[in-house]
Amino acid sequence: MALDPVDLLTRLIACPSVTPEEAGALDLLETELTAIGFAVTRLRFEGDGSYPVDNLFATRGEGGRRLLFAGHTDVVPPGDTAHWTSDPFTPRIADGKLYGRGAADMKSGIAAFVAACAAIPPEAGTIQLAITNDEEADAINGTEKLVRWMADNGHHFDFAIVGEPSSAETLGDSIKIGRRGSFSGKVTVTGTQGHVAYPHKANNPLPVLAAVATALSSERLDTGTDHFPASNLELTTMDVGNPVSNVIPMSGTLRFNIRYNDRWTPESLADWVRARIGSVEANGTDIAFEVSGAPSRAFLSPLGTDIETLSATIAAITGKAPEYSTGGGTSDARFIAQYGPVVECGLVGPSMHKADEHIALSDLTGLTEIYADFMRRYFAGVAA
Amino acid sequence: MALDPVDLLTRLIACPSVTPEEAGALDLLETELTAIGFAVTRLRFEGDGSYPVDNLFATRGEGGRRLLFAGHTDVVPPGDTAHWTSDPFTPRIADGKLYGRGAADMKSGIAAFVAACAAIPPEAGTIQLAITNDEEADAINGTEKLVRWMADNGHHFDFAIVGEPSSAETLGDSIKIGRRGSFSGKVTVTGTQGHVAYPHKANNPLPVLAAVATALSSERLDTGTDHFPASNLELTTMDVGNPVSNVIPMSGTLRFNIRYNDRWTPESLADWVRARIGSVEANGTDIAFEVSGAPSRAFLSPLGTDIETLSATIAAITGKAPEYSTGGGTSDARFIAQYGPVVECGLVGPSMHKADEHIALSDLTGLTEIYADFMRRYFAGVAA
Repeated sequence: MALDPVDLLTRLIACPSVTPEEAGALDLLETELTAIGFAVTRLRFEGDGSYPVDNLFATRGEGGRRLLFAGHTDVVPPGDTAHWTSDPFTPRIADGKLYGRGAADMKSGIAAFVAACAAIPPEAGTIQLAITNDEEADAINGTEKLVRWMADNGHHFDFAIVGEPSSAETLGDSIKIGRRGSFSGKVTVTGTQGHVAYPHKANNPLPVLAAVATALSSERLDTGTDHFPASNLELTTMDVGNPVSNVIPMSGTLRFNIRYNDRWTPESLADWVRARIGSVEANGTDIAFEVSGAPSRAFLSPLGTDIETLSATIAAITGKAPEYSTGGGTSDARFIAQYGPVVECGLVGPSMHKADEHIALSDLTGLTEIYADFMRRYFAGVAA
Repeated sequence: MALDPVDLLTRLIACPSVTPEEAGALDLLETELTAIGFAVTRLRFEGDGSYPVDNLFATRGEGGRRLLFAGHTDVVPPGDTAHWTSDPFTPRIADGKLYGRGAADMKSGIAAFVAACAAIPPEAGTIQLAITNDEEADAINGTEKLVRWMADNGHHFDFAIVGEPSSAETLGDSIKIGRRGSFSGKVTVTGTQGHVAYPHKANNPLPVLAAVATALSSERLDTGTDHFPASNLELTTMDVGNPVSNVIPMSGTLRFNIRYNDRWTPESLADWVRARIGSVEANGTDIAFEVSGAPSRAFLSPLGTDIETLSATIAAITGKAPEYSTGGGTSDARFIAQYGPVVECGLVGPSMHKADEHIALSDLTGLTEIYADFMRRYFAGVAA
């Protein structure tokens, strides 16, 4: 049974599935997956301070090795459509490229994987798909709950691929084997308000705030690990909001974000921040630190046979083994990593989230080949 | 001819002359001053980005030494009247005190001076009054223009008294012989915006902003002069306004205010600020400094015979010579100082601008005595 990934991708792009509206994209996938033997479960998660989100779980085969493919059908808004050559939700093929919102991020990954599945006999092994319609926004009722539901319902996996656009310039030049974590915090320094003409009656918090800013930004967290760049802290804002030039303010705040590697946990980072703050002379002010939101943990998938198999597959098709990367922002892979090894392997990313988002048609065919060939090796247990 | 300062003060307080509405206060003064021989000129100044303001100039006598008394009839708003024991514009006498908005700052100074003038023969010398109805707010169409108008119209003075509440705890314990200047500035540090996950593509301005804040606030300007305390810089605000935790901001600003003594001019301060900023490693950012508004200059009146006469007069009446102070904020005396020596000598200040503003009735009588006795000595040319 053959399934054309270009045809499937154009039909997916035609669904304007801006988060959190699935706009028919999941219905389309359900039809296609059912047609090639998958049992599909639709799951709507809601609550926890976010909007309801539609998700899709599909599984085919029993026994053997278990592979999970994860991805998302939602896309970021098109922005000002005046910057697009043509309508973002009307797929357009020109010069060997396919244009449309979601072409790179990441309806192409889904189309390639589903097309690859159509080429694999159902008895080869267990294939599972976990597709959400909210990766681009809150990500609260999406993959995190979907993989927890899978674990609670006995749907385990030995290896997972996320179809995010992991390639930098050419197809397969890079796969992501981990991601840095993200940790945001806020520091408030409170002194005593007063009139600038009578500073002895006040205690200005701003010199202390500046000292905290310097303490946090002047010391490196680390110099990197085997597979990760150095962890890095950036001050994101400092705010007082005092409109009056003759008043010493009562308090000021700063906020920061740390992108960190596998040397750290949110707990050890909080300790580091507290130690840096502790190195500052408080000068009678109160310095309060709090973690903002839920930090996302760093992860690194164990470098074993399956990643080597994927690398060998890519090398066989593109002529070059991929770089093992841990760069970039965060992705839903962080949720999957809590249950098993996961890599991100997909198309070329740079046009994502921009006007005239596109992919090369030959890359889409190539990715379908990579997925299919990897599955043959993976289920056969062939080492690299 | 006797004029009761308590009666005049109660009638002045009954005029709700919140800046810039004179609310009858200047009309009342015109009537009283005309009755004791003054020629009164009403002057309404406007423009220069502020509201129109009513001012009053009065003069009596010709030849001899020339004395200027300056003050303001406007008052700050009463604030939440729930904090007042009774209506702020209905004068109330209780326990030897007179309560009402403007009682200390500074309708009492005007009432005492006018009452003192009534006790001085017109032929003693030249007495001039320069009264504005905007000292408390913009001060753009008030004393600054009034004294310029005087100079332009040949109304010169040999010595000036401003009736601001200069006393700290008891009547006459302090007169102000100068005032610090006020200088406000803004520093903007501009880097390159970017995503916190890709710091190498951005240049965060906030560590540099923090370093500028430290450079400005960590070095003393001076240790004080003979009659002034040390100059002092206070950071008043630091603002970025970046609401997003994953974005490195493009720029941040800080603002500061310097209260400075007679060692400095606005020009030398600007040089000092530039030198402090120059000591910071800009790290590829742009650091822009600008002066905010019009700095007010510091002034110190020459310590000569007239100030000694005033001091001796106070000592004779209160039993204690006043301290020569230069503390506190700014006042209209800074405008007068450009044309001749000026001191501030008035009632006890701490209740000013607060609810239940008040003065002691005995202090009002005492201040009237001080003004009258000083004028007798001043016009007689009696040295201390």
